[in-house]
Amino acid sequence: MQLIENHRSYNGYQKVYRHKSEVNKCEMQFAVYLPDQSIEVPVLYFLSGITCTEQNFIQKSGFQKFASENKIAVIVPDTSPRGKGIPDSDNYKLGWGAGFYLNATEDPWSLNYNMYDYITKELPQIIGLNFQFSKTKIGIFGHSMGGGGAIQCALKNKFYKSVSAFSPICSIHQSEFTKEARKQYMKNNYENLNLYDPLYLIEKIEKKFEQIKIDVGLNDEFLNDLFINEFEKSCQKVNQKLISGKHKGFDHGYYFIQSFIEDHIKYHASILI
Amino acid sequence: MQLIENHRSYNGYQKVYRHKSEVNKCEMQFAVYLPDQSIEVPVLYFLSGITCTEQNFIQKSGFQKFASENKIAVIVPDTSPRGKGIPDSDNYKLGWGAGFYLNATEDPWSLNYNMYDYITKELPQIIGLNFQFSKTKIGIFGHSMGGGGAIQCALKNKFYKSVSAFSPICSIHQSEFTKEARKQYMKNNYENLNLYDPLYLIEKIEKKFEQIKIDVGLNDEFLNDLFINEFEKSCQKVNQKLISGKHKGFDHGYYFIQSFIEDHIKYHASILI
Repeated sequence: MQLIENHRSYNGYQKVYRHKSEVNKCEMQFAVYLPDQSIEVPVLYFLSGITCTEQNFIQKSGFQKFASENKIAVIVPDTSPRGKGIPDSDNYKLGWGAGFYLNATEDPWSLNYNMYDYITKELPQIIGLNFQFSKTKIGIFGHSMGGGGAIQCALKNKFYKSVSAFSPICSIHQSEFTKEARKQYMKNNYENLNLYDPLYLIEKIEKKFEQIKIDVGLNDEFLNDLFINEFEKSCQKVNQKLISGKHKGFDHGYYFIQSFIEDHIKYHASILI
Repeated sequence: MQLIENHRSYNGYQKVYRHKSEVNKCEMQFAVYLPDQSIEVPVLYFLSGITCTEQNFIQKSGFQKFASENKIAVIVPDTSPRGKGIPDSDNYKLGWGAGFYLNATEDPWSLNYNMYDYITKELPQIIGLNFQFSKTKIGIFGHSMGGGGAIQCALKNKFYKSVSAFSPICSIHQSEFTKEARKQYMKNNYENLNLYDPLYLIEKIEKKFEQIKIDVGLNDEFLNDLFINEFEKSCQKVNQKLISGKHKGFDHGYYFIQSFIEDHIKYHASILI
């Protein structure tokens, strides 16, 4: 694991590491916000949206102030494998920057596009080996593609104790965002897609959270492609408490995330600390 | 004046405008953070560093939270003229992104590179015509090239009531950052350079501030090129009170700015409101 960035930020450090990923068969980068005195602090994973790397969230969200104040480590992975020899596409909804936090089953994607295993297995293991954060106080959140990713990862893995999302893509099956990914990564196989679909999983999975928090802007240019109302209905159906904030005027971008990042960090802190 | 970006951000809007500049003879962009109920609110100008546009500060500093809380409008101009037909250079310390907030006297720069007049005359006039902000509660701050720019503009113009800087370049005459600019914009003319030199001006100009605030990181990779100790000595010499914060571990970049932006906004608010 190679440290490639290290910046003092509030009462902590914003770091970026590069390492060899076994599951994605390439080098990957992830960011860590390391509060001073980080032993046994809670760990919060943030999954970013399409086109992002680990840089967007660490540069634009302003989360560090609240991670520092609440003494929480924040891990921000890249959104896909990338680099020489890794398949890509001209369509920004596929390939580099659009891993969709799933394990691809189809060629040429299946060798490298195993972001689900990377996020839920390999990366937590690397974090566990290299840092002295809490092994039990673990939360996950994300934005757009990463908001849906956070929900599906959280529902299937006991070790996530808290989950929230900004403007999540709640339907893998129906969103225009996932059209090419469904086809190319999964050959439109319905059952395989279910494994990563928040709308499907929320009704089928036994694991429940005391609550799930979602925020979305009502001026979000992609609102109709997120299927948040449908997710609300599914939550109601299975008695999953959902705190759903709909915010007048806000759009899909980082000015929205920035405006509500304090709420989300405090939400996770209230559950994890 | 054309609105090209408009994002809800905290209790306000982050906007970007494009307009025709008379003094720079080209189209220019600037950003405005507009708090809700912006009538008669104080106005704070932020001047950015080399290579920046208006985007860096509005995306990375996280200032909007504090501008919103303190009800201050924040104006962020570009750092130079740019675009088709505008002279540029391969050297990042010259040309696009490196206007140094001065009026160039030499060809081919003098026609367009009039950032001093743009910042202190044309832009305030445009802001005055298009917004209902206070006409008297005006402050200025900046980073690196823009930190020095904020100081020299503030010292020479009565209407700036407050001034602060992150990691300012305090010597136009001595810094490596300004070497090419001195030569190409000004033919190394000593007297013309004095007009924009914080170190010269602080000793020569009659105008004083109740205090000037500067912050710098002690891990700043350019610390020796900022001449902050020399600026401190000059301030002492002429009894200009300087609050100078030197911060262990912090570097020259936006993680430093982000960590102290709340302090700076509150500092200006305490003087202007």
